[in-house]
Amino acid sequence: CISQDIDHILETQSALAVDLGGTNLRVAIVSMKGKILKKYTQANPKTYEERIKLILQMCNEAFNDAVRLNCRILGVGVSTGGRVNPQEGVVLHSTKLIQEWSSVDIRTPISDALHLPVWVDNDGNCAALAERKFGHGKGVENFVTVITGTGIGGGIVQHNELIHGSTFCAAELGHIMVSMDGPECMCGSRGCIEAYASGMALQREAKKLHDEDSLITEGLSVKNEEPVSAIHLINAAHLGNTKADAILRTAGTALGVGIVNILHMVNPSLVILSGVLASFYEGPVQQVINQRALTSARSIRVVSSDLEEPALLGAASMVLDYTTRRTY
Amino acid sequence: CISQDIDHILETQSALAVDLGGTNLRVAIVSMKGKILKKYTQANPKTYEERIKLILQMCNEAFNDAVRLNCRILGVGVSTGGRVNPQEGVVLHSTKLIQEWSSVDIRTPISDALHLPVWVDNDGNCAALAERKFGHGKGVENFVTVITGTGIGGGIVQHNELIHGSTFCAAELGHIMVSMDGPECMCGSRGCIEAYASGMALQREAKKLHDEDSLITEGLSVKNEEPVSAIHLINAAHLGNTKADAILRTAGTALGVGIVNILHMVNPSLVILSGVLASFYEGPVQQVINQRALTSARSIRVVSSDLEEPALLGAASMVLDYTTRRTY
Ligand SMILES: [Ca+2]
Ligand SMILES: [Ca+2]
Ligand SMILES: [Zn+2]
Ligand SMILES: [Zn+2]
Repeated sequence: CISQDIDHILETQSALAVDLGGTNLRVAIVSMKGKILKKYTQANPKTYEERIKLILQMCNEAFNDAVRLNCRILGVGVSTGGRVNPQEGVVLHSTKLIQEWSSVDIRTPISDALHLPVWVDNDGNCAALAERKFGHGKGVENFVTVITGTGIGGGIVQHNELIHGSTFCAAELGHIMVSMDGPECMCGSRGCIEAYASGMALQREAKKLHDEDSLITEGLSVKNEEPVSAIHLINAAHLGNTKADAILRTAGTALGVGIVNILHMVNPSLVILSGVLASFYEGPVQQVINQRALTSARSIRVVSSDLEEPALLGAASMVLDYTTRRTY
Repeated sequence: CISQDIDHILETQSALAVDLGGTNLRVAIVSMKGKILKKYTQANPKTYEERIKLILQMCNEAFNDAVRLNCRILGVGVSTGGRVNPQEGVVLHSTKLIQEWSSVDIRTPISDALHLPVWVDNDGNCAALAERKFGHGKGVENFVTVITGTGIGGGIVQHNELIHGSTFCAAELGHIMVSMDGPECMCGSRGCIEAYASGMALQREAKKLHDEDSLITEGLSVKNEEPVSAIHLINAAHLGNTKADAILRTAGTALGVGIVNILHMVNPSLVILSGVLASFYEGPVQQVINQRALTSARSIRVVSSDLEEPALLGAASMVLDYTTRRTY
């Protein structure tokens, strides 16, 4: 039966996905249907040489495993922090979250080593691609993804396609400023939503509170060696710590105001929040939209992503979409 | 000679352009080449009925004059404040700058009275269309126009076309917020660039200064009946008034930060400033971009518009472009 044959082809056609984050370097084998068949995680090395070496090593291992799993690898998709020129497969510039990662051609070494086509885009854009293919963005003409993780990133889909802009700097949503002064940001500016609402920013505030002995609240303890994190701040606020609560309110307002700015600029019909803090921010963001967006822009849906691994799935989708595209 | 015939046709093919602003209602006869052949100005009435009546009256007068000027009017283009659904020719919603101007079908009454096709879009979008056809935006794939007049408006051109968004609320650039609190805005929110940097905002600040006797500076006088305006503030600052200077610096920073937010979202290659305050803001905006934009987004050009009448020319261009378009 033909349809069974097609199913079988779709099941065996796969992509290698690479995700380069501030902390980890990950590789996965992803099937055409968006299933992650195997995943590899290592700490992201601090130098360019070690990083490239480890990428190739992990890709090779994954490729060999894929053969054993009877997966046909069609290509490699790379999701990375920083500004990316996807036409050239080059990382133009990164913040300090990933060191030695500016003006880096990632396509050539991977393509040379694996003899496969390679696609590269930034993590926020990959997350948007993942939503378009596998998530809430399926069939939605205009939507935006905002990822609140260690930093804040995002992607804008307009007329079903990513916006990259004239210098590949579109959808740098973490660096929308909601204050003319405000806290310093990794990018060198101030008042960016990343400096208010990212995991990094909340951790900075949690540490400050902890240093002045204001974090610990009845019911909350931080063990001696345990690193203080955003989660402690959220838990402290839940337990009635008013200082923690005030910090989180400011963070929610900052993110909400940043997202209203997005609505007033590109006016999508859907905002998808993803990253570890997505469900925490869903309520505050909706509230700020109700209070501060223009009437005509309020009818937007705000949802949290259902995808486990938006960056990896988006990286894979660049490969998988290419191979099934009808027009070029 | 055929080319002379074509020239003659192009010279006589014209549009009626209507511009509905917070203060004035204007109509013009505009030739295919962007020449304003005749212009009519009245105060914009405060009620819906009077406004529609006056629009029709002025359009009729202009239409009759056009016949005498040997102009063939191909249609009517309307530029208006507020959110517009250009497909339906309806003003969805306006701020208080234009009263009784929400859920208004402008197309039907004009089209019924003049028996001509009618196009409608908001003033910021029209200004962008004017730049695309007659100004700095000619041949530029991705650019943004920001108009600093009484309010602040704008238009975003991506891949040579205006972005309207899912609810016709894209490019509401005046309501980009650069502060979580900040001064109140006409839209009901706070900290919008319109509330910091528009003519209206500067007038508000100038009045405050004048009320506390801090506006008048050596060399500057305000006559008794003369309304205090942004121009007084600018002149005072030039003459060494430090309070006036501080207000204008904040305004320039606010506008600059708002424009950096635009760069980080849609990353155009060109920003065109227009409106009465354009040349005043060109320097401060460029400075904020140099200080606060991501490295990859800094290579943008910021220019002031050369067009005398962006709103009228843009309104006309909707008519003129339609009649010469090759695809529909
Ligand atoms: Ca992005
Ligand atoms: Ca607009
Ligand atoms: Zn930043
Ligand atoms: Zn506003």
